[in-house]
Amino acid sequence: AQSSVTLFGVVDVAARYTKANGQDVYSLASGGNATSRLGVRGVEDLGGGLKAGFWLESRINADAGTTDSAFWARRSTISVWGDFGEVRLGRFKNSTKLAYEDFDPVTATGLGSVENLYSDLGTKAGLGRYDNQVTYVLPANLGGFYGSVDVAAGEGSTFGKSYSGRVGYKANAINVSAAYMESGVDTKYKLLTLGASYDFGVAKPSLIYTTTEFGALKQEVWTAAVTAPLGSGSVWASYSDAADKSTVASTKYKASQFAAGYVYNLSKRTALYTTVSLIDNGEKATFNLNGNVPAVAPAGDGRVGGFDLGVRHNF
Amino acid sequence: AQSSVTLFGVVDVAARYTKANGQDVYSLASGGNATSRLGVRGVEDLGGGLKAGFWLESRINADAGTTDSAFWARRSTISVWGDFGEVRLGRFKNSTKLAYEDFDPVTATGLGSVENLYSDLGTKAGLGRYDNQVTYVLPANLGGFYGSVDVAAGEGSTFGKSYSGRVGYKANAINVSAAYMESGVDTKYKLLTLGASYDFGVAKPSLIYTTTEFGALKQEVWTAAVTAPLGSGSVWASYSDAADKSTVASTKYKASQFAAGYVYNLSKRTALYTTVSLIDNGEKATFNLNGNVPAVAPAGDGRVGGFDLGVRHNF
Amino acid sequence: AQSSVTLFGVVDVAARYTKANGQDVYSLASGGNATSRLGVRGVEDLGGGLKAGFWLESRINADAGTTDSAFWARRSTISVWGDFGEVRLGRFKNSTKLAYEDFDPVTATGLGSVENLYSDLGTKAGLGRYDNQVTYVLPANLGGFYGSVDVAAGEGSTFGKSYSGRVGYKANAINVSAAYMESGVDTKYKLLTLGASYDFGVAKPSLIYTTTEFGALKQEVWTAAVTAPLGSGSVWASYSDAADKSTVASTKYKASQFAAGYVYNLSKRTALYTTVSLIDNGEKATFNLNGNVPAVAPAGDGRVGGFDLGVRHNF
Repeated sequence: AQSSVTLFGVVDVAARYTKANGQDVYSLASGGNATSRLGVRGVEDLGGGLKAGFWLESRINADAGTTDSAFWARRSTISVWGDFGEVRLGRFKNSTKLAYEDFDPVTATGLGSVENLYSDLGTKAGLGRYDNQVTYVLPANLGGFYGSVDVAAGEGSTFGKSYSGRVGYKANAINVSAAYMESGVDTKYKLLTLGASYDFGVAKPSLIYTTTEFGALKQEVWTAAVTAPLGSGSVWASYSDAADKSTVASTKYKASQFAAGYVYNLSKRTALYTTVSLIDNGEKATFNLNGNVPAVAPAGDGRVGGFDLGVRHNF
Repeated sequence: AQSSVTLFGVVDVAARYTKANGQDVYSLASGGNATSRLGVRGVEDLGGGLKAGFWLESRINADAGTTDSAFWARRSTISVWGDFGEVRLGRFKNSTKLAYEDFDPVTATGLGSVENLYSDLGTKAGLGRYDNQVTYVLPANLGGFYGSVDVAAGEGSTFGKSYSGRVGYKANAINVSAAYMESGVDTKYKLLTLGASYDFGVAKPSLIYTTTEFGALKQEVWTAAVTAPLGSGSVWASYSDAADKSTVASTKYKASQFAAGYVYNLSKRTALYTTVSLIDNGEKATFNLNGNVPAVAPAGDGRVGGFDLGVRHNF
Repeated sequence: AQSSVTLFGVVDVAARYTKANGQDVYSLASGGNATSRLGVRGVEDLGGGLKAGFWLESRINADAGTTDSAFWARRSTISVWGDFGEVRLGRFKNSTKLAYEDFDPVTATGLGSVENLYSDLGTKAGLGRYDNQVTYVLPANLGGFYGSVDVAAGEGSTFGKSYSGRVGYKANAINVSAAYMESGVDTKYKLLTLGASYDFGVAKPSLIYTTTEFGALKQEVWTAAVTAPLGSGSVWASYSDAADKSTVASTKYKASQFAAGYVYNLSKRTALYTTVSLIDNGEKATFNLNGNVPAVAPAGDGRVGGFDLGVRHNF
């Protein structure tokens, strides 16, 4: 019975330089290319096409040996699979986060994450992971169609229930998906994200369009990205443009992010990488670089830049 | 030397409905049938009948990815075994908790736990697990007799030392045990628990009688329960009755709990289950359902009910 | 790919008696002989003499089931090795801690640790482990010479950057090393430690000389120790003498520690042990016994003593 239990994880540490408001910061940072983590997961074959499994995953800030305050905050789930698909219960990523991650060359991780420009519009709705969530995931045999729907019970949270869902199509070189989330008690926080990629072999361009809305507040973010194999690694770049579309005039802002990097694979499990990212905060914007950036927040209407050089090991 | 180290655990999540004071709460809850946990344990054969081993076990609130504030709060021990029995040092369950759990169909877990009606009489003495504990457990070859004695050093706690012990007899279909604990500095908190079960094959009825005492305060709880195999699972029910026996008139109360459930085994390791539990708080009682019930405390003299439907996977 | 991942650790619990200021304390303590811990580590062969690996290690206070507030505070690192040596990034012991531990019979653990008399001179510089550290370790094939240099980025800490380094020579029976650390922003905290040991077979004597300095404050500690095989275990003793060498007259103190113990190996992985340690605080000194000693601090100019009897299991 123990045979199917797997201990897995990532340790990823980078030397990093960031600059905001004219202040240089040199640091060691965890998760420049992939979030450092430790996990335990397992699957049991119940017979008759039915399977059960669990997944526990804990973030590690490997530069300092700390974890999230909720130890298994990345994921703590139990699932049952069958021909009908998967039913999963616990804490994990909702469908919208999976949707935009799929089309970001760095899966929303590190200095160049597309999430850097995403705003929750002051709602504290949170991007990505929810407690007390139930998901149904479509089975894999639908001729390329895939999808999932989630509901998060919202108990214990002041923000109430959340619902999200995604539909997509992936076959041969193409991948497209649309996902939508609504959460909150009275006024709803709404996130819509559309993504598409096409793998030409020599390069895989992708597009992401994400809007968030909360009452009169609205944000629109476009991302164009590309990943291409190069030597025993891959090079990538992304450009994102965020604009305030609120019907409340005083909050107007514009911001853009350019990010690029190279990942050099020493093996299937180990890589050296470098990332560069620059956010240009126009007007009142104060977007900052993601990750373990020491606390130098950008002033409104300022530039924030970063560079790192790191090593990532999967186990 | 690594070969004897085992990674083990449980992930158990349920959809739950509870009602207290007329308020409905729908939630996702961890540990409806067995407490979600992750553990590491190992045994080494030292030769000459002697063995050494360790056991580390951490609770997981799988609905939200959190743990207890003491990470290894369920158990962190080192043991030496021999023909003489076992000596164990660290943090773990004391003998009295083991004693009443053995006769509760749900081993004091989930909505129907017998512990729901147990009171520590305001002492904060805690039921069950102690830090800084030393136990001696009798060897297994005593013709059915078993037992253990514990002492918890009490350092760092305002409640001082604790002592507990248990003797029992288990052979063929019968199991009976008596356990007693005393803890505290001046006035002692005392817990006595007697249990008996008989496995008729078609059904296994059990009885538990537990009293707690702290100076003039005293509580008496009776439980009658039954577990019976049904299909590829088992059905169980328990009825508990708690009464205040204090010699201080103002605290008088009565309360009862009826709980029942069905556990359907998908395999030896995975089960679906359902539980229903109802506490009837008579007079001034304010007993509540155990587990991750969101904070709607019963008013005195009120009913509290709950129902859940969950899936449990052992690994 | 999973084959190289190892789950390892130590569980070590002792019954302990300590006395300070005339107060007796009986306790159960974790880590009397080796710090209780749980770790996960792995190595991958990248080919061409290159290797990559990770190491995660968490302290366990096995008497109470707690951990450090930074869960992986003992170590969280990623390393790349080659003919050139090792480059390591993350949180781990710096070179000076490794240097004095090597010559302490109890590797700076438990009641008899040489660290008991080491002072950080009020700097909070910390002995031993740093966040955000980069180390280069010399390769093993230098004819007995070994060494390492570290830099800790100091971000997030009010104490700024730290640098440390060590050179040593170990061949046949001899081992000598010198290590130095400097950390801080303006006034530097400086630690110098010299160590030597010679293994005569029948006994291995060792010497440690450590000085710490911070502006006008200075401390000097001498340790003479010996370890000798005895039966299926080993006996050890150490004597340390600490003196204030500050140029500020008011802080003058003297203190000494005598510690001894016996470790009886039940197997290669499991041992019983006993330790006795006595600190004699002369003049204004208030040094205390290390480890989980309940909070009875010595008054200035007083004696502190301790004794424990424990069991340690490595896995």
